[in-house]
Amino acid sequence: MTESTQAALQQTQNWKLTLSYDGTDFHGWQVQPEKRTVQGELQAALGRLVGEAPLPQGSGRTDAGVHALAQVASFPLQARIPAANLVRALNRTLPGSIRVLEACVVPDSFHARHSAEAKTYEYRVLPIEPAADQMCPPVLARYVYPYSWGLNLGLLQRAATAFVGEHDFRSFAATDPDLATRAGETDADATVQTETRTTVRTIFASEWQEQTADGFHLLVYRVRGNGFLHHMVRNLVGTALDVGRGYRNVEEIPKILAARDRAAAGPTAPARGLFLHSVEYDFNS
Amino acid sequence: MTESTQAALQQTQNWKLTLSYDGTDFHGWQVQPEKRTVQGELQAALGRLVGEAPLPQGSGRTDAGVHALAQVASFPLQARIPAANLVRALNRTLPGSIRVLEACVVPDSFHARHSAEAKTYEYRVLPIEPAADQMCPPVLARYVYPYSWGLNLGLLQRAATAFVGEHDFRSFAATDPDLATRAGETDADATVQTETRTTVRTIFASEWQEQTADGFHLLVYRVRGNGFLHHMVRNLVGTALDVGRGYRNVEEIPKILAARDRAAAGPTAPARGLFLHSVEYDFNS
Repeated sequence: MTESTQAALQQTQNWKLTLSYDGTDFHGWQVQPEKRTVQGELQAALGRLVGEAPLPQGSGRTDAGVHALAQVASFPLQARIPAANLVRALNRTLPGSIRVLEACVVPDSFHARHSAEAKTYEYRVLPIEPAADQMCPPVLARYVYPYSWGLNLGLLQRAATAFVGEHDFRSFAATDPDLATRAGETDADATVQTETRTTVRTIFASEWQEQTADGFHLLVYRVRGNGFLHHMVRNLVGTALDVGRGYRNVEEIPKILAARDRAAAGPTAPARGLFLHSVEYDFNS
Repeated sequence: MTESTQAALQQTQNWKLTLSYDGTDFHGWQVQPEKRTVQGELQAALGRLVGEAPLPQGSGRTDAGVHALAQVASFPLQARIPAANLVRALNRTLPGSIRVLEACVVPDSFHARHSAEAKTYEYRVLPIEPAADQMCPPVLARYVYPYSWGLNLGLLQRAATAFVGEHDFRSFAATDPDLATRAGETDADATVQTETRTTVRTIFASEWQEQTADGFHLLVYRVRGNGFLHHMVRNLVGTALDVGRGYRNVEEIPKILAARDRAAAGPTAPARGLFLHSVEYDFNS
């Protein structure tokens, strides 16, 4: 082996991985001691496969029980391995509840979190009869929030529209005890903004639609923004549901935003209805 | 308490339960020693609630991993309990992967299996890329058969149509070692016919359609018939997929039926794609 070959081999390549997971059986994305997490499983899988175990950086954290249709992670590897082989090998060693959809070598400047320009989340609500609070169909139970208050789609949509634009979403951020001191880290979906520890985010699109799954009628919220604070999507949903069932007036939303106080907004909707739908990057910037 | 009241209390009422379950974590419907089954969980729940533990009779057995959107069971109870309370109480004590959708008192002549007039099953196939055999999206993994051969919907439908009508489906029945001696019992979905140990069944409707789930394109087979032999739906699907991918000619199907030999038909499709969709009864007969 020549010296230049050896040097080339020691140089790392930057990988971008797109992955999908069922969050039910994980303690969220982020590595934690003694707990099964998606990031931890992915790191361990890389270690088994290539003998290198870099900590994959996700586009953002997902909480326990939150699912991902297309999460993105980036990490450096010294090993030279064709992308298709890396996908296949990872999928053989990872649990079936985590699947790698795509792998590619990207410029060193790419970072799954810092380079993200937009993210889309989806939240699925199953309207059920008031008396039927234990009746979520088992085949949907991991993936929907069964909701027993009557909901008006028009009101839900009015609430969703009120979130659009650039706002300080502090009222919709989790009141983690350590949020103030490490906003950048506890941010569920930190983007460029979080480096400055602001709670200002821009929501580009925010809408509810009716869908049918397994013959059941679902109300699905889809929200696209430049970044989301910890619990932000679940808090937007909890507040929109308050409006949709007539408990709160839609006119309250500007006041909730202005309050910059978590207590002003509605409850946090459960994790299991939430899906990280996709992360967008602009490679030309 | 008068003697007549006491006598009335000792008289059993016949209950009909409609239930939904995710079959992934059960060893099928039928009670088995040391194994977690849907029938066993339901019997134990009744025992905890009302101190009576009749063995609920299902409309038919479902195998390990097979799901039910609306299975029907019947059983006698001495306890007098309002139907809505029974539903609520059962759903509080049953695991979340089994939900009772409805309960009602029915005439004593009703039997979930013997009284069934038609059943509908659904089978969900996820077409995936040939090289992507490990890439079933985690949120669909419990509920679809990821299939990597290219499929032609027109051919699938031609195969499905060839199953319609009254036929001897022995070629599509599981070759259980004890099938010959206890056809009535091993029958997955025994109806009146199985009392006579025939393998003749009538398929009323049999069709494939395209559906979208979580942004993924699915091919869904729905079959309605007066009864189904053990593994019959999964064997019909396995054979239709052989036709749909061009491995088998649709003209073979009449010959497969005529052979009355399991070896003549295609493979058994996996359990996880199969759903018992509904069971129909005619209460006027």
